[in-house]
Parts: sequence; structure tokens; C-alpha cells
Amino acid sequence: MTIFEKIAAREIPAKIVHETDEFFAFHDVNPQAPTHVLIVPKRVIPRIAEASAADSELLGRMLVASREIAQKLGVAESGYRLVINNGPDAGESVPHLHMHLLGGRHLAWPPG
Amino acid sequence: MTIFEKIAAREIPAKIVHETDEFFAFHDVNPQAPTHVLIVPKRVIPRIAEASAADSELLGRMLVASREIAQKLGVAESGYRLVINNGPDAGESVPHLHMHLLGGRHLAWPPG
Repeated sequence: MTIFEKIAAREIPAKIVHETDEFFAFHDVNPQAPTHVLIVPKRVIPRIAEASAADSELLGRMLVASREIAQKLGVAESGYRLVINNGPDAGESVPHLHMHLLGGRHLAWPPG
Repeated sequence: MTIFEKIAAREIPAKIVHETDEFFAFHDVNPQAPTHVLIVPKRVIPRIAEASAADSELLGRMLVASREIAQKLGVAESGYRLVINNGPDAGESVPHLHMHLLGGRHLAWPPG
């Protein structure tokens, strides 16, 4: 099991802020902004480059859910950035696809 | 028309690297990395916070297409980062949803 599967199974504690049958969101343990959560599919897709056409709807629903999650966390109006890392140059860490949602401060450009 | 609609209509020149009936990708005019393209739906969604459930499949297909685009641009193996900005704190610019794909160098953390 990946660490994110263990979080979904409540085997590892995390501050979960949103959950559906397909995906869930929780606070990053190493937050890079006042608001920093990860949106993660329950089904393991290792990384975005390994997603297939069959994953499209799930991935799209995760993106659409970002509004509701941002509203819950109070950053819908001030703004937020969604980030997906794929491969070594991007610093991809856990091989279980996750979308970062960051907000609560000015986010600089370039994005890393 | 948004500037991206004008690019899709070939009214404004851009280096288009990928195109389907639903979306297209082209090189950012202010690149923040050796590879920096924007993936943009042809149908105008102003920002991700205004996407609805009906947009899920399209948005998911844009994410899934990132692999093929990264392969074309030679960054599939070295890695890439996908970024969507929403609202003022994220520096959202054009009110026509776009996904940044950056690669070709180490991308630092935090992402902005």
C-alpha cells in the first residue's frame, strides 16, 4: 500500500478535509503555504504520465472539486494554485498521483 | 474573444505543439523553463473554479494528454510540472482556463 492508501484507510492519521468514493483531500504534512492540501484518487495511478483515457473523468472530477475544497478552506476568493509533479525534474515523491492545492499567500512566478 | 481563442482561430500566431477538437497546446510567450507550454480548452471556461461537472471529461483528457505533449517536447523522462492558477493570489492572468506544463530544468519547491 502507498502512504496515501494508508491515509485513506485511516491506518495513518491525517487531517482529511474532503472525501468522495473516488478521491479525498488532506493537509500536506510539509505545508508550503498557509493552505496546502493534497487531492488524491483512492485508486492508485502512479503518476499523471501513467493515467489512461479511462482515468479522464476521475481526474476531471478532482480538478472540478478544487473549488469546493478551496471554499471549505477559505481560499476560493483569494486564490489558489493546483500543481501536479511528474518525474525527477519536478521532484515527484510518492508514486501515487496527487494534486497539490496551495493558497493563503501570494504565490510567486515561476512556479518553482 | 480571449487571446487564446484568437490563437486557436489562427488570428494570433503561436507555436502550436498539439491540437484536438477540444483543446490545444502552444509555447508560452514568456517561458519560465526550457519547456513551457499552455494546454487550453477551445471552449472558454474562465477559470478552474468555474468549471462544472459537465467539464470533467474534457479537463481529465487535458491532463491525460500531458504525457503525449511531454513526449513530443522531450521532457517525458526528465519530468514536468503541471500548474493551474486560480484567482489573485495565484497570479491568474487570462480569464480562459489554461494548464501550464513546465520542464527541461529542475523545478524547485515550493512551487512559487
